Amino acid sequence: MTGTANLLVSCPDRRGIVAALAQLLYGQGANILDSDQHTDSGAGAFFQRIRFDLAELHVDRAGLERAIGEVADRMEMTWRVAYSDVIKRVAIFVSKHDHCLWDLLLRNRSGEHACEIPLIVSNHPDVKPIADQFGIDFEVFPITKDTKAEQETRELALLEKHDIDLVVLARYMQILSGGFVGRFHGTIINIHHSFLPAFVGGRPYHQAYERGVKLIGATAHYATADLDEGPIIEQDVARASHSDAPEDLIRKGRDLERMVLSRAVRWHLEDRVLVYGNKTVVFA
Amino acid sequence: MTGTANLLVSCPDRRGIVAALAQLLYGQGANILDSDQHTDSGAGAFFQRIRFDLAELHVDRAGLERAIGEVADRMEMTWRVAYSDVIKRVAIFVSKHDHCLWDLLLRNRSGEHACEIPLIVSNHPDVKPIADQFGIDFEVFPITKDTKAEQETRELALLEKHDIDLVVLARYMQILSGGFVGRFHGTIINIHHSFLPAFVGGRPYHQAYERGVKLIGATAHYATADLDEGPIIEQDVARASHSDAPEDLIRKGRDLERMVLSRAVRWHLEDRVLVYGNKTVVFA
Amino acid sequence: MTGTANLLVSCPDRRGIVAALAQLLYGQGANILDSDQHTDSGAGAFFQRIRFDLAELHVDRAGLERAIGEVADRMEMTWRVAYSDVIKRVAIFVSKHDHCLWDLLLRNRSGEHACEIPLIVSNHPDVKPIADQFGIDFEVFPITKDTKAEQETRELALLEKHDIDLVVLARYMQILSGGFVGRFHGTIINIHHSFLPAFVGGRPYHQAYERGVKLIGATAHYATADLDEGPIIEQDVARASHSDAPEDLIRKGRDLERMVLSRAVRWHLEDRVLVYGNKTVVFA
Amino acid sequence: MTGTANLLVSCPDRRGIVAALAQLLYGQGANILDSDQHTDSGAGAFFQRIRFDLAELHVDRAGLERAIGEVADRMEMTWRVAYSDVIKRVAIFVSKHDHCLWDLLLRNRSGEHACEIPLIVSNHPDVKPIADQFGIDFEVFPITKDTKAEQETRELALLEKHDIDLVVLARYMQILSGGFVGRFHGTIINIHHSFLPAFVGGRPYHQAYERGVKLIGATAHYATADLDEGPIIEQDVARASHSDAPEDLIRKGRDLERMVLSRAVRWHLEDRVLVYGNKTVVFA
Repeated sequence: MTGTANLLVSCPDRRGIVAALAQLLYGQGANILDSDQHTDSGAGAFFQRIRFDLAELHVDRAGLERAIGEVADRMEMTWRVAYSDVIKRVAIFVSKHDHCLWDLLLRNRSGEHACEIPLIVSNHPDVKPIADQFGIDFEVFPITKDTKAEQETRELALLEKHDIDLVVLARYMQILSGGFVGRFHGTIINIHHSFLPAFVGGRPYHQAYERGVKLIGATAHYATADLDEGPIIEQDVARASHSDAPEDLIRKGRDLERMVLSRAVRWHLEDRVLVYGNKTVVFA
Repeated sequence: MTGTANLLVSCPDRRGIVAALAQLLYGQGANILDSDQHTDSGAGAFFQRIRFDLAELHVDRAGLERAIGEVADRMEMTWRVAYSDVIKRVAIFVSKHDHCLWDLLLRNRSGEHACEIPLIVSNHPDVKPIADQFGIDFEVFPITKDTKAEQETRELALLEKHDIDLVVLARYMQILSGGFVGRFHGTIINIHHSFLPAFVGGRPYHQAYERGVKLIGATAHYATADLDEGPIIEQDVARASHSDAPEDLIRKGRDLERMVLSRAVRWHLEDRVLVYGNKTVVFA
Repeated sequence: MTGTANLLVSCPDRRGIVAALAQLLYGQGANILDSDQHTDSGAGAFFQRIRFDLAELHVDRAGLERAIGEVADRMEMTWRVAYSDVIKRVAIFVSKHDHCLWDLLLRNRSGEHACEIPLIVSNHPDVKPIADQFGIDFEVFPITKDTKAEQETRELALLEKHDIDLVVLARYMQILSGGFVGRFHGTIINIHHSFLPAFVGGRPYHQAYERGVKLIGATAHYATADLDEGPIIEQDVARASHSDAPEDLIRKGRDLERMVLSRAVRWHLEDRVLVYGNKTVVFA
Repeated sequence: MTGTANLLVSCPDRRGIVAALAQLLYGQGANILDSDQHTDSGAGAFFQRIRFDLAELHVDRAGLERAIGEVADRMEMTWRVAYSDVIKRVAIFVSKHDHCLWDLLLRNRSGEHACEIPLIVSNHPDVKPIADQFGIDFEVFPITKDTKAEQETRELALLEKHDIDLVVLARYMQILSGGFVGRFHGTIINIHHSFLPAFVGGRPYHQAYERGVKLIGATAHYATADLDEGPIIEQDVARASHSDAPEDLIRKGRDLERMVLSRAVRWHLEDRVLVYGNKTVVFA
């Protein structure tokens, strides 16, 4: 077997976890390439990411996962294995602002983001030419209060049809229902154009301008039923000053949004992010 | 006459302000060394800071200010002149955390902050040895709900006695009354240990830890009757991660607080800050 | 007349410059919108950028410039006026790395960079599809030691034909001759993929990896005959660690290069940059 | 036994290292609290830091180290164990600039740096009052070309007498001989006031000013015989602009130097730094 795999584990903290997992993988012929670990002593929780080489594995993947499962049961672990040759499939949701869409498509094309992007969804037709140029299916679902539920049902069907693993809200100016989010728990990444928890809700750059802050920010987080309240994956800021009009903040913000969202997406694609409670562990 | 002066002006925006002020100063023999200007077209407001040399002034300071006053009246200007040889007198208020106090005292001693610090006030006796070592008067005013009004009266008397121009709240964990703040409007600088408007109120680092943010911040602002709502002078942030316990955030925060507060104080001492509405113009 | 203009001035420092220019513009009916100024006391040099409104100008542009010229002669000023309705024409030179090219084209399309881009030049055919898609002329000039002089002559002719104001070397991996650079003095911007003066020359990310630095950088500068020695316009850095392989530094560097180059280009397009000696004054 | 310990390991990369070490510690009753690991595939080198709890250790420290030694021999490991209850002893070398000295002394007093500081050495008497105030032995060794060798011998004797584990050059403006550095290989931390490898040697802020860089930096590195060439532990930068005179760069630099040096010292004290070749692995 070729390639590598990532084992992601979270469980109650206890003696011997590290040894047990290392021993287990060693016993299966899996060579550990990298290992990151975090213990939240407050929460009594243990987290680990182990990247290992499959080249000399003694067993097949099913066998490996059976062996992991046995240890996991013994230690009450939540776990998953991600194989480097299983490419994640990403759907991008976008409204009219196309800067994050362009950024994600170009990073994918350049090989920086290892994923397939078979689908772009929007509530407006504006970005269709971009989708066409990259040869990606593009579907428009105009949203009104009345049509929302029905449209979300169609969107979910489409995501299933395209076998989507990750939904990226790349400046998608619609609020998804709790039902929709629930179906993709921990696999919808949203970019919010402020340094959360400051300036939740709409027009954050105008809120920032009104407050006279000296830094503006952007936040990438997993979408949850509570808008702007989901687990934060990445944040960054840029300097602002009295000479920045709202449109200057918006311009600076576009670069922030691109950078922050693209880092969060890459870390997710590389299985570096573990969610617990309303927080993330990011083994960057 | 020797030294330099700063003229700070704000007024409704109109044609010819820059020319009028430049002409005025030139006519008095004041050589403009530096000039910063900002127009807030939204608010229709004009702001300027002009630093000029007094060496070849034709008139005395009273004469200069009379001349400025005439132009100012014509153009509805709010203005002030600050002379480099008039050293500002600073009182530092502090509770038990002494890192910002040390930082301000050492920057003053090294000549980085051009001011005199004749007075340190606290609600605890803890930092007295530091005050003694720098030969600075130290007064303790324990605050309880009942004594607060009375103690503030004593504090205000002390500030008058020491002829204080600027009050720096260097991690002073007491809320000043509206009356106190009103007496020192625009001349009380507070350091809040979060990136405002995120995490107002108490224990902001613990709030940040609970929310799982990936950056922590600090904010220096002018104190107003509304806690944590005053005009922001400076802000900065530092990276945080899942591996940071609250005490790590507090440690990183101490450096942020020192840096942000010291920059805000320096800019104020150098007359680089203009307040308008709930914002600041900082000609840094 | 409509629109705005920027007056950029540098001259020996002396008394009364600010007043003279403000008075001059006021007298012509030019309303000063913004004014930035810098005095290098060491070099005894004065620099100013004045943005003004043309709406109520009493004279035509020729008349305005005559008036400026008279003051300028009196005060030994080097000066230029740039009008907001005269759009600069930009040629992009690129080799095979297309990330900066994409970035500049998209910023131009989104209106963030106010310029026209009629021409893309490369020593390789690779990026032709990108040029085609944006409807921009694309010319390939393969460079060898023997053909270089001749090819540069062709390139210069092409730049003249397209009436180019600014050449951007967006990861163009060829060294331009002193003759070529001399023809476009102060109007060729290069992005170097290191924090100059560290790691001049080739493969800077590999040099950075070998040295084990904890930050990598990028530098946008005006091209001069001495490679990597020209006046620096902008620089920025990103964190690196022991876990970054050269390809990780290259990935992080792409974002740095995009950000740094795009800021430098925007400031140049907005006439915010003054060159003196081997330095720049950037009124950002 | 109480407290915790850090095991630091570097060795040729091979299969089973992680498992062997985890198994070993588990077998001795050492509970792994944290584990960081890095593989430099290019160099074929493996590095790990394991922090573990001693509370339920079955053997004494000698026994533990014997057991580690056996595994280490088998796998050609270079290793060391550092116990949390063995406090490192630090000597600070300084010339006349006292800002880094103050910073280190205050961080130590506040408990941020877990170490003892029994000795301050200088080539000038200036900072004696600071040493006295903290009750720290202070020794002056004026250095001339002729006396240097002899003085270094005296300094080394003093370091032995005080049983010093780490020497911090906190703006010590003398070059140590290869012999001196050799005696404290990997345990002398120097702060250089530039972003190395830019601006090696003297007056780096003036070099930076001359070059017109837009960022200034500071670098903490282990001292080696080659000045400014040692393994880099930490670096950081601050924005500079045309308006910064050399003295402004020096002022901004003081904050950089404090931050960068204090982080490097803390990481060293917490046994987070591994040196290999001319680089460091920092498990921060």
